[in-house]
Amino acid sequence: MTGSRATNALTVSKGCAVQTTRALPEEVPVALVYNGTTQAVMMATPCDLVDFGRGFTRTEGWGTPDSIDVVAHENGIEVQMWLPEGEAETLATRRRAMAGPVGCGLCGIDSLEQAARTVPAVTATATLTPTQIASAMRALRDGQALHDKTRAVHAAAFFDLKQGLVAIREDVGRHNALDKLIGATVDCTVGAVVLTSRVSVEMVQKSAMAGAPVILAVSAPTTLAVKTAEAANITLVALARDDTFEVFTHPNRIQTEEASDVA
Amino acid sequence: MTGSRATNALTVSKGCAVQTTRALPEEVPVALVYNGTTQAVMMATPCDLVDFGRGFTRTEGWGTPDSIDVVAHENGIEVQMWLPEGEAETLATRRRAMAGPVGCGLCGIDSLEQAARTVPAVTATATLTPTQIASAMRALRDGQALHDKTRAVHAAAFFDLKQGLVAIREDVGRHNALDKLIGATVDCTVGAVVLTSRVSVEMVQKSAMAGAPVILAVSAPTTLAVKTAEAANITLVALARDDTFEVFTHPNRIQTEEASDVA
Repeated sequence: MTGSRATNALTVSKGCAVQTTRALPEEVPVALVYNGTTQAVMMATPCDLVDFGRGFTRTEGWGTPDSIDVVAHENGIEVQMWLPEGEAETLATRRRAMAGPVGCGLCGIDSLEQAARTVPAVTATATLTPTQIASAMRALRDGQALHDKTRAVHAAAFFDLKQGLVAIREDVGRHNALDKLIGATVDCTVGAVVLTSRVSVEMVQKSAMAGAPVILAVSAPTTLAVKTAEAANITLVALARDDTFEVFTHPNRIQTEEASDVA
Repeated sequence: MTGSRATNALTVSKGCAVQTTRALPEEVPVALVYNGTTQAVMMATPCDLVDFGRGFTRTEGWGTPDSIDVVAHENGIEVQMWLPEGEAETLATRRRAMAGPVGCGLCGIDSLEQAARTVPAVTATATLTPTQIASAMRALRDGQALHDKTRAVHAAAFFDLKQGLVAIREDVGRHNALDKLIGATVDCTVGAVVLTSRVSVEMVQKSAMAGAPVILAVSAPTTLAVKTAEAANITLVALARDDTFEVFTHPNRIQTEEASDVA
């Protein structure tokens, strides 16, 4: 499962049509199944699915599965996971609280309340310099193997303050790319989550659940993402390109070069 | 509700930090409520929500609501809709079949089967020339008012073959932008749906439910989107920029200039 497949196309340029082939990203229904019951079906790129299962479990707050098996079927893929008894009991509650289709008989006001997920505040104290931020964004750009082939997937990477970019994961869905990354990264408290995509509220919630103190993104955040990062004590840096970036929350973790020189 | 809000940021450029203000897109939980029960909670940009409700209802295959009311609450917005008795009965079935968090007690294989939604084949016979495609892409680019302010939202537009671009809607979520567009467009059979975004399978499914014969997109499709467009008899044109585009399915609806001259 490489995540892309060569597909025929008719390319029309200046009125002339020629048969061409293009690598397109694969998108497959992936069922996340806990203790025999489906928790979610996501449309995802079918690579790094063990990471996906581990990361999704972590960002939902259920710890680490006892086992993860990836089982391919005709119309999709199952990620079969088993949680310890105690964690399994919290599933039913959260199940109804997830954004997206819920429809478990709640009225609108109750379902909005359940969708307003609160996440723990991040306690890690990492600081970054503008030079490190530029280096992280460069490394992200250089590491997007599937995007280089398809020009059509998102990436999430982890920039360790001591080791640089240590992991990168890609997917047609930006939430999935981040879940895969978090599943592949043992300790998200020692650096920054680096994203190609826009920062919606769920990207902040997932980063907070992983304990990441800093988010660096190529694109812009939403207003709700900023509000959530503020509350979760996450430093949200967006529109990070070349030698310019914008800090929307908790700028104390960004060390300007001058301050760094003095210290 | 304009869809954006001015937000303070610390802009760091070449090591110098200055306080700036940037318009960010708003993102709000929106509950889609039918006959008193929530069907879905979507994170959406809070504008054109009557269109959103009407379009979501249509792309889910439930016809037209008898009434649509938008009610703001502290932690989100309800779109309250009432469906005729017959339609309401189909909700419970579809509720469990939607992709995204489902978790209604199904095992993985059953939930994958339910997620594999089949859509009706489109019967409309519209044809487009390369000149019309270039014109549609230009009009899309020129019509993105919220994106011009925020640089961070998707747009979906409808290009009527006789009248040109007749509607455009924007949202932080591309599915929401398309649902809003479909809710704002009376007849989607007489032209093309035009998208700024990548084409995932759900974008094709929604277009098929609206009866749109052609999709024109700036970015690339996924493999599953191509397969679904093929089955739904939709002409899928992607990577449409300036005077170049790629046709992935049903090229018979694309009339090259030469053929057009002859005819």
